[in-house]
This record gives sequence, structure tokens and C-alpha cells, in this order.
Amino acid sequence: MTRRAERDKAGRFLAEGANAVEAALARGEVYDLFVTERAAQAHADLVNTALEAGVRVSPITDRAAAGLSETVTPQGIVAVCALLDRPLEGLLAPGARLVAVLVDVADPGNAGTVIRVADAAGADAVIVAGDSVDPHNGKCVRASAGSLFHPPLARTRDAGAALAACRAAGLRLFGAHGYADTSLDTLDLTTPAAWVFGNEAHGLPPAVLGEVDECVRIPLYGEAESLNLATAAAVCLYGSAMAQRRSSGG
Amino acid sequence: MTRRAERDKAGRFLAEGANAVEAALARGEVYDLFVTERAAQAHADLVNTALEAGVRVSPITDRAAAGLSETVTPQGIVAVCALLDRPLEGLLAPGARLVAVLVDVADPGNAGTVIRVADAAGADAVIVAGDSVDPHNGKCVRASAGSLFHPPLARTRDAGAALAACRAAGLRLFGAHGYADTSLDTLDLTTPAAWVFGNEAHGLPPAVLGEVDECVRIPLYGEAESLNLATAAAVCLYGSAMAQRRSSGG
Repeated sequence: MTRRAERDKAGRFLAEGANAVEAALARGEVYDLFVTERAAQAHADLVNTALEAGVRVSPITDRAAAGLSETVTPQGIVAVCALLDRPLEGLLAPGARLVAVLVDVADPGNAGTVIRVADAAGADAVIVAGDSVDPHNGKCVRASAGSLFHPPLARTRDAGAALAACRAAGLRLFGAHGYADTSLDTLDLTTPAAWVFGNEAHGLPPAVLGEVDECVRIPLYGEAESLNLATAAAVCLYGSAMAQRRSSGG
Repeated sequence: MTRRAERDKAGRFLAEGANAVEAALARGEVYDLFVTERAAQAHADLVNTALEAGVRVSPITDRAAAGLSETVTPQGIVAVCALLDRPLEGLLAPGARLVAVLVDVADPGNAGTVIRVADAAGADAVIVAGDSVDPHNGKCVRASAGSLFHPPLARTRDAGAALAACRAAGLRLFGAHGYADTSLDTLDLTTPAAWVFGNEAHGLPPAVLGEVDECVRIPLYGEAESLNLATAAAVCLYGSAMAQRRSSGG
């Protein structure tokens, strides 16, 4: 279940580590919890929460924990969870005002960090689109620090469908692009917005750049040539989140 | 020279990869450039720049490149550079309005990413203080994507001295702290500011929290419990950078 095809076939994925397990239990779609002896002692509260929720808890060896882990430092506590994504249709509730769309994001750590930022900024949903990494990937789960379980999430291979869904929900589409004419600091950020972020190396594909309402660059006031994906997403998503709240009086 | 003590003794450090080498050559304090045959072909422009600047260029094997590298994917191009830090005294020019101070930041990738963000946000200087990782660490150099060579940089074990230098330069001291009473979105960000960021796990030490003018939290609008260091720094530093420019009319 550390491979996408296995996860999709089983409809399940692995959430490793105390943060992720806690968030998974709060969400309530955990089938099994595997813990090493050491982790069971360190996280007795989580084990109890699981047992009270009727989750089957099974002891595993350190070696088995390492086998389930996609990271170099297994935490010894792993939940088997239902896949989190839901259909794109119906994902965006009326009144949604902030959505993050990831198109062709390749690195699972980056994807997870962007999902964490989107959650922190109060995003109404996250859409993982195009050839992006599967958000249920273990490194993505870990980088999201539990946030993968928070905002409603959809996956779609069709980036155009993701944009169409955002547009239908009344969101303005902002494509983050290093060489765009429009700078973030001249943009009206109070409007309900879908921020679209592209691949770490190649940015957004031309078809997406052609479909968004505005291509936006983050101003580079110093000598840096760019920001990395996660920090760029933080500036954009928080830019909208704070401007929207200022404009609505909190 | 992949260890701090060696670097400090020699007064030199290694900058690996095309981005870093380009930035190092632009700064002009490169002693030697080592390149594999493959890297010399891929980066002929950099090799020429080095030769024109009178830098000694030496061929190395892939194996030697791996030995010099602190990363798992050696890029085959490594510059031996003069250490970048300068004394804290005199670091901050009159009129400085944005400084990033890292206190006890442990992870070199995080430190490098924060330095990259600080550069992008137009910071006048970066101070790496307390028990922070050495910014000349190879992983930090790489994560900074060249930015380590851009803003003036000081290192000091004495976090109090770093704060005092910022205060003496007329900067307001903002300590980023997850549980602070003051939220970023209620703060006057137009003022010249030094943003102080702490350890990834433990945040800022009490002594530093007691010395800053304001402890500031980033508002968490969703369910995330926190942001990671680099994305938090991006929100804070860009918050100040954009507010300062809006207030001064660009």
C-alpha cells in the first residue's frame, strides 16, 4: 500500500506518525492501527482513542514498522485509512472563497507542505490535478502534518476540469507564475480566489496559464531568482486569506 | 571542508551546484572551481566565467565530486569560496528596513530556505544566531539556491547581540511565536522590522521572547496546528516587505 496503484485498488492508504494518526482518528475513517511496543507507550492516548472508536489495534515489530514506512525514520505508529479524496463535483460548497489547486506538482514533500499551508490559510478545499503526485503518498501525508485530513480534497488528472469547477463556484483563478506581468502586490486579493500552483521545475503548463483569469508573480525585491513552491504558496494563500478577512472586517 | 570546524579554520567553504557556483562567481570570492567532465559540458558558461575571472578550474572524477558533496545527488560542480559572514558590527546600514534573524535553527535545509525567502523579500541582512546550523553547511547552501551569496550575512552565538544590533539600527523586533497574543493580521507591518525565527521544534528561547518588541503569531484560519519554519518566514517577511512598499508608495 506504499504504491499508488495498490492504494487506489484497495481504497486505502497508510497514515504514519502521531500527527497523522491523530488527524485520521479525528476524521473517523481508520480501519486499522498498527503500533510498535515503543510507540504504544509513547502514544497511549492515541491507542486509547482508537480502541474507544472501535478501531482494531495490532502490535507490530520495529522491522514491520520499517517495512510499512516510506520514510527513513519510522515512527512505529501507522493507521490504515480510507482514501480521502472525493469527487470534484460537489467539492466546492457555495460561498467557498479560497481553494488551492496543484497541477503537476512532482515532489510529495512539496505537495504535503502546500496542503498544510492551504489548511492553515483556511482553504475551503484542495484539488490535486494533472500529473501531480498522489496526496496519499507517505511522504506527502507526513509533510502535511495532519492537514491532509482537514480541507476537502479532490484528485483529478484533468487540470481543466479542476479550473472549471473553481470557476463555476464563482472563484477568480490566479495562476502563480514566476514571469507573469501582474505582481501580487498590485492585485486585489479580497476576491474569492482559487490559487493554481504548478510543477517545481516547469511551472504551470501553457494550457492552464491560458485558462486562468490572471497570471501572478510574487515580487522579488532582492536578488533571488525565485521562491520554492511551498514558500510561494504561503505568500499567495495567506495574501488572499488575510486580505479577504480585512475586507470583510474579520 | 564539509565540517564547520574545518571551514572556520580554513576560512573557506564549498558551494555546490550550478546555482550556487553562479552566485559565488558573481560575488567574486571563489578560490577554486572543481568540475566533472559532464558538468563542464553542461555548464560551459560557468567554467568560462570562472576562467575569465582568473579562478583556477580543476577537473575531478565523479567519485571525487561525490566525496566533496553533502547531498545524495552530486552535481559535479563545486566552488571553494571565502566564508561569507561578516562582523555583526557594521552589518546593518543606516536605513535598513527588513532583517531576518535565525535563532537556534537546526535544519540546514530550513535555514537555506529561510535565507532564500529573506533575499526574495529584499531583506537588508540575515543574522544566523545562537545554536543555529552554520549557513555555510552544504545543504544550507543548496537550499538557499544562491541566496546565501546575496544579503549581507553575520553569524553570532550571542542571540542577544543580534537583537541589540537590530534595535540599534532602529528596527522593531518581531518574534515569530505560534502562541503569541498578537496576530500578524492586526500588526502594523509598515515599520522597519527585524523578524526573529526560532528552532523548528522548540521555537524561540524565553530570553529572546522577553527581548523582542512584539511576539507575533501567524493566524491559523483552518485546522492546521502550525506552519513549518520556511512557510511561516515567507508569510512574515513578505508581510513586512509588501506593507512597507505599499506605505511608501512603492
